[in-house]
Amino acid sequence: MAEQVSGPEIQRLIQLLARLPGLGPRSARRAALHLIRKREELLGPLSDAMQVARDKIVTCSACGNVDTSDPCIICCDGRRDPAVLIVVETVGDLWALERAAALRVRYHVLGGTLSPLDGVGPKDLNLASLVDRVANGGVREVILAVNATVDGQTTAHYVTDLLAHLDVRITRLAHGVPVGGELDYLDDGTLAAALRQRTDF
Amino acid sequence: MAEQVSGPEIQRLIQLLARLPGLGPRSARRAALHLIRKREELLGPLSDAMQVARDKIVTCSACGNVDTSDPCIICCDGRRDPAVLIVVETVGDLWALERAAALRVRYHVLGGTLSPLDGVGPKDLNLASLVDRVANGGVREVILAVNATVDGQTTAHYVTDLLAHLDVRITRLAHGVPVGGELDYLDDGTLAAALRQRTDF
Repeated sequence: MAEQVSGPEIQRLIQLLARLPGLGPRSARRAALHLIRKREELLGPLSDAMQVARDKIVTCSACGNVDTSDPCIICCDGRRDPAVLIVVETVGDLWALERAAALRVRYHVLGGTLSPLDGVGPKDLNLASLVDRVANGGVREVILAVNATVDGQTTAHYVTDLLAHLDVRITRLAHGVPVGGELDYLDDGTLAAALRQRTDF
Repeated sequence: MAEQVSGPEIQRLIQLLARLPGLGPRSARRAALHLIRKREELLGPLSDAMQVARDKIVTCSACGNVDTSDPCIICCDGRRDPAVLIVVETVGDLWALERAAALRVRYHVLGGTLSPLDGVGPKDLNLASLVDRVANGGVREVILAVNATVDGQTTAHYVTDLLAHLDVRITRLAHGVPVGGELDYLDDGTLAAALRQRTDF
């Protein structure tokens, strides 16, 4: 701002809000004003919720999910099939797959993908713990649910090699037409994959 | 979410973030994950900044701006011309005008517009304090910087009537072509106003 219209406290709140994904400087100002207006209903509770998150959230030592307990709520859930592990890049991917609610199994969060250009090597990912989990037995299938990007696929191949000596089935997500998607808008690679992996009607 | 993927603390954080303007459920989830990942750099400082905002921010008893001091930093600024008051609907409008940095004067925040349909009457706005400020002398001009909406213009007329018996010049923002705007995309009303209020080149 050209001039100071309020003390540094409000400026700082706006600057920090602007660092959230999805908020720019303008929407951060709007969010700050909204918070100040709704002090009792929103600013207070959100501030408290952040304090709790800061103090309590830990990374699950088994799967890499974030939760307030370790092991996390998913690893503790006895109704989930412990014989199937879904390998994901990030906790956000884990959440997305859980929303799909297709399989009641467990996860393993790698924490990223192999990316030599960005200096991310095997040691930077939760790969050793994945091999341990599978080697310790009881895992029948590992589903590689990494992104369909170059880095994601490189990582998938690397994980496959790591687990090759173990007696475990390794699968990956199907490629195909998104549900509700229109063929005309799809790229050639997806269409080709959808044709190759066609299923009986 | 179909299944619980973490304890209630993270769910609550997401729900509260989703109530910020500009964030929906999906971007709130992304923001929560971003905060959890950047615990030291962002979650902690933002949580602290919110705590400070909750504890310290007050409404300026003179002009209605929000700040950590009362009177606010603008009302305390001796380099501003005290003889001109800009009347705005909200603190957000005050911030916007300050960014324009065209006039170094003071403000009066009404806190909304007259809106009989929404049950907002004159008593719900900071109108009495505006009349007091002008009646107490020293104010030469009141600039009505309300929105160019029906409610905004109704409010402008009401304020004009309120101040009619006082010796003060009442002005309003110019209508015209936005800087950088293209004529072809402008509505007829704006173009007509821009023609009527044309200035010498």
